[in-house]
Amino acid sequence: MAIVTFTTDFGFRDGYAGAMKGVVLSMAPHAAVVDITHGIARHDITGGAVALAQAAPLFPAGTIHVAIVDPGVGGGRADLLVQSRESFFIGPDNGVLSLAAPPPRRIYRIEAPSFRREPVSPTFHGRDVFAAAAGRLAAGAGADQAGPAALAMIELNPPLPREVDGYLEGAVAHVDGFGNLITSLVAGWGQVGTAVDLEIEGASFRARWGRTYVDVPPGELIAYLGSSGQLEIAVRDGSAAEVTRASRGSPVRVRCP
Amino acid sequence: MAIVTFTTDFGFRDGYAGAMKGVVLSMAPHAAVVDITHGIARHDITGGAVALAQAAPLFPAGTIHVAIVDPGVGGGRADLLVQSRESFFIGPDNGVLSLAAPPPRRIYRIEAPSFRREPVSPTFHGRDVFAAAAGRLAAGAGADQAGPAALAMIELNPPLPREVDGYLEGAVAHVDGFGNLITSLVAGWGQVGTAVDLEIEGASFRARWGRTYVDVPPGELIAYLGSSGQLEIAVRDGSAAEVTRASRGSPVRVRCP
Amino acid sequence: MAIVTFTTDFGFRDGYAGAMKGVVLSMAPHAAVVDITHGIARHDITGGAVALAQAAPLFPAGTIHVAIVDPGVGGGRADLLVQSRESFFIGPDNGVLSLAAPPPRRIYRIEAPSFRREPVSPTFHGRDVFAAAAGRLAAGAGADQAGPAALAMIELNPPLPREVDGYLEGAVAHVDGFGNLITSLVAGWGQVGTAVDLEIEGASFRARWGRTYVDVPPGELIAYLGSSGQLEIAVRDGSAAEVTRASRGSPVRVRCP
Repeated sequence: MAIVTFTTDFGFRDGYAGAMKGVVLSMAPHAAVVDITHGIARHDITGGAVALAQAAPLFPAGTIHVAIVDPGVGGGRADLLVQSRESFFIGPDNGVLSLAAPPPRRIYRIEAPSFRREPVSPTFHGRDVFAAAAGRLAAGAGADQAGPAALAMIELNPPLPREVDGYLEGAVAHVDGFGNLITSLVAGWGQVGTAVDLEIEGASFRARWGRTYVDVPPGELIAYLGSSGQLEIAVRDGSAAEVTRASRGSPVRVRCP
Repeated sequence: MAIVTFTTDFGFRDGYAGAMKGVVLSMAPHAAVVDITHGIARHDITGGAVALAQAAPLFPAGTIHVAIVDPGVGGGRADLLVQSRESFFIGPDNGVLSLAAPPPRRIYRIEAPSFRREPVSPTFHGRDVFAAAAGRLAAGAGADQAGPAALAMIELNPPLPREVDGYLEGAVAHVDGFGNLITSLVAGWGQVGTAVDLEIEGASFRARWGRTYVDVPPGELIAYLGSSGQLEIAVRDGSAAEVTRASRGSPVRVRCP
Repeated sequence: MAIVTFTTDFGFRDGYAGAMKGVVLSMAPHAAVVDITHGIARHDITGGAVALAQAAPLFPAGTIHVAIVDPGVGGGRADLLVQSRESFFIGPDNGVLSLAAPPPRRIYRIEAPSFRREPVSPTFHGRDVFAAAAGRLAAGAGADQAGPAALAMIELNPPLPREVDGYLEGAVAHVDGFGNLITSLVAGWGQVGTAVDLEIEGASFRARWGRTYVDVPPGELIAYLGSSGQLEIAVRDGSAAEVTRASRGSPVRVRCP
């Protein structure tokens, strides 16, 4: 039984997400349709890419992931079907697939009529191209039947960490729903209770290194190895985004004094 | 395997939507339960009807659609099971089913005890009538076993377009989650880049006709054939609802100058 | 086919809920994964417990319910798997499971390596402990294989109703998404139209007893037997929480004058 997941910025007021599920189930009635989320902020391609990357690696081999945050729908950008790590990723060529589907990968442009639902609405490729391609794949078609292979796709490249003046420098890669800052820095060091100096958005903070939130008192800053392997910064029972005024892209400097 | 979808205004803080899924799965353990959305604005019957109509036609024949926006729950309005286009629609008789289940249709009142979960809570027909009826149907019962046939149901009638002073006149049928205006006008004409004069809520706007959002520069108004076949008005990377101050029901006048 | 439900405060901006579904489906590919909700207010343990209790009893025997509102994740609190009423409840030992899984129950601490996903992230037991335990159970393992039995778990004890000065006294147990007040009082009496005196947060209100909302005019207070068997207070087409300024825990006094 094929599994098809959905990650979109369609929100919860409309039937757009439902329409996509209907297309998949019409083509592959036994597929399991699974929401990752439809609550990505409007047009937040990176937010969609991060959410998909948080969830997709946990699914079984063969899962078909549809991700749609698509301000350029119907314009020049390509419609992609990507094979990576034995799973499939379907969505616009704007970076939204890039974090979850790392190389090595096979990239196809979805151009075969059997992978599209004609006539394709220029404003709703989610329904007429991406869901249709997912349904076709779930019904047993091969990825290479979708259309011509492509050599490359748009990447979202997080800034590489670097060391400057004894500080490790990176950026906020994502602010999650709890206000936790997921940085671009790969964590590894740290002993519970050790002080950590932070510079974020030009202000200085003193945090404590910990394993989990309750290692610091309520309201205090904690730095820890997050569940995706990156350095994260949180405020116990609070919001690090509020306390530090950080948002995605904010430079972060970290030092153990 | 039966498919049962849900469209409600129950929101995301409670277990009400979950309770309905439980009722269906208790009666039909192999049914696929699929969310269209639970984020319809409270008591927004038209909003629920539009969302269901956006999604339902894409599902396979035989799908059972449950739609509940029900300010009159437990009062005099009937509980309906409607057969239309080889699919089933279950919900209160207040119009919420009417856009997705066009004539010809068979209408039944859900009155048979086997289609209800006794004792029925007067404030939660979603659980005790509508989910129970969906579960019974998903388990193989015939729609005509639900109760007596009815001749008519409440309709939501969008205003018919008319032509006045060279303008095509209609109304805003729905504002979607992106702030796009879905009008009651059926689109068809238009060449990319052509100017379109709009009058909305007493103010005049100049838009450009396009196929999709990127056919106009960011921040500009575009008129286009929407994915449901109606004329839509959007602002690229913005909100047409904010720019025009339109809301559902706002009169819209359109002219190609 | 096993059914696994999810109730969390993870919200809709991240892939956290999706990651849990992936873990379950990787271990039990034929499981049906069903959202109760991911919209519980952050860290609102009681809100999660109430939502789960509203939904769980409706699911078929054998259903596996995962509930995660977990401010103490990775700290000293236990990871639990509870068997109650022929169903299974998985989550942190902080009360979130207690309302849906009443005694008699069997309580196990999830400690067996096969019920966990090593290495367990100290900040994401949802993925690495609770979803893994649900997947293992869905794949056919016995609950008693999860780890050692425990004698007790954290309970959420609503205040017992008492009678004082002719008033029945209790508290607001939950405010639902419609602003309806679900009290700790068990309802039973009442004839439609009868006056009911209320004291809430120090202010006095006159409501009418009814079966359902439309038994009173729009904007007026109604007291009724709610769908979970408790006395509820609502404002027709409005919000009782706004009108009475009540929130969870607010004392409520009720009297039929």
